[in-house]
Amino acid sequence: MQIAIIQDKIVPLAELDQGYLDRGIYFGDGVYEVVRSYNGRLFALSDHLERFSRSLKEIGINGVDIENVRQKVHLAFEHANITDAKIYFHITRGSELRNHAGGSALKPNFFLTVTQLPDCGDDKEKGIAVTTFPDWRWKRCDIKSLNLLANVLARMDAEKKNAKEAILVNDIGQITEGAGSAFFAVITGQKKLLTRSLSPEILPSITRQIVMQIAEATGLSVSETAITPAQAEVADELFIAVTTKDIVPVVKFDDEIIGSGKPGKCTKILIEKFRRFVAEHK
Amino acid sequence: MQIAIIQDKIVPLAELDQGYLDRGIYFGDGVYEVVRSYNGRLFALSDHLERFSRSLKEIGINGVDIENVRQKVHLAFEHANITDAKIYFHITRGSELRNHAGGSALKPNFFLTVTQLPDCGDDKEKGIAVTTFPDWRWKRCDIKSLNLLANVLARMDAEKKNAKEAILVNDIGQITEGAGSAFFAVITGQKKLLTRSLSPEILPSITRQIVMQIAEATGLSVSETAITPAQAEVADELFIAVTTKDIVPVVKFDDEIIGSGKPGKCTKILIEKFRRFVAEHK
Repeated sequence: MQIAIIQDKIVPLAELDQGYLDRGIYFGDGVYEVVRSYNGRLFALSDHLERFSRSLKEIGINGVDIENVRQKVHLAFEHANITDAKIYFHITRGSELRNHAGGSALKPNFFLTVTQLPDCGDDKEKGIAVTTFPDWRWKRCDIKSLNLLANVLARMDAEKKNAKEAILVNDIGQITEGAGSAFFAVITGQKKLLTRSLSPEILPSITRQIVMQIAEATGLSVSETAITPAQAEVADELFIAVTTKDIVPVVKFDDEIIGSGKPGKCTKILIEKFRRFVAEHK
Repeated sequence: MQIAIIQDKIVPLAELDQGYLDRGIYFGDGVYEVVRSYNGRLFALSDHLERFSRSLKEIGINGVDIENVRQKVHLAFEHANITDAKIYFHITRGSELRNHAGGSALKPNFFLTVTQLPDCGDDKEKGIAVTTFPDWRWKRCDIKSLNLLANVLARMDAEKKNAKEAILVNDIGQITEGAGSAFFAVITGQKKLLTRSLSPEILPSITRQIVMQIAEATGLSVSETAITPAQAEVADELFIAVTTKDIVPVVKFDDEIIGSGKPGKCTKILIEKFRRFVAEHK
């Protein structure tokens, strides 16, 4: 008789909950998004759904009704009634006995959580330390997939070194992005904001896009250029950008103190501009 | 109130089954093995457990008692009572609310299935078609992790083209291995068996190791050399090697017929030698 063991318990395979046959766990065969609310209002949901739709398409999960996903996000957000909420959702290709190519009858699985966003006020005010780690990720980081072990290992390494984020460095010594964030450098003398250009090496970050937009509006010229850790260490200011925290100043990069060791002036202006952008965003 | 949605159903987060909080699904944060039995006897279990132990160590999942895993494999195999069984098992870092670095209190999750091995006699007798696909995998393919989306996409592409396996090709145009198998070429004139050398680009396949061992014993000299798809297309014989099927001849590579379009002589000898190796293996 075909069986399974969950922890120490033997279960007939036929009685196994479909959750244990999810291709998400066998292969990371799914894609996800993280959306947040500011002050009781969902932020940039359509942008996230558009990216989600692209991710699904890129890995060939077809037949998902994005409007249905949108409704579920709204329903969950209203039901949870959390002012500053983090909404995570993923869709996997479906559940069946492990088999790489997957059967034709697979029905995608949907999963979502609404949780309280942890406060990041302290990180924003004091800035964070980051450390570098090799970018071991796959070659399609433009797809927001559930294959995140390389990101996990990088973040674990950072936390061991008392840093809050890992900055990933590719084979030719260039920074790609953070393990869970976009990465920016400011060259104040040149009024320049540097960040890597979009490619399969990085996620098309929505927060990155907004940062670039508001930076231009504050007189910083955005240059989509790859930089090395050595260049980052001598930048005037550094910051990361991510949905759950928007802009967070970086004040230590590996062992180097950045600028004065406090959040830089341009970064603080961008944080304030981002705050206003959110408030005006309908 | 923090909540989840599973498919269409709202569930309070606090009541969520731990399976839905498994880091295996959020990040592919776990490692696995596939072991088989031949004729009622487990094959090469110690080799698989040794590799499993290394994989766990490489991703920093500590405190797993490998002897306990061995006992579970034996228990499951005996309980299932399947002569030609496929035993899949994985361990993930544990269950908790999604968080890259993971909490310090995580307790690893164990999951295993014993299923009937599908018969692959037809593939072995007639040989299979394979197609090439870019190797999009991460840079630590020496770890047998649950991050397998690149493998899935390659295999899906192969099946669409009526092929049974995808052969992965890296950025510099070299074959690494199959999406779920090791890859070999035979140059009969030189009595040579070619396969890529071990590195973080490929899995240290146990079947590959056995094939190399028996090949030497049959007078083939093994050369650990990378080859290109163009070189594979003109090889005298090709085959793949994988735990669940051991040696399977490849008779079509992309659009090219290999040799006479039937399993090659050396490959057939190796299949027979492998069969004998299994029978003699205690």
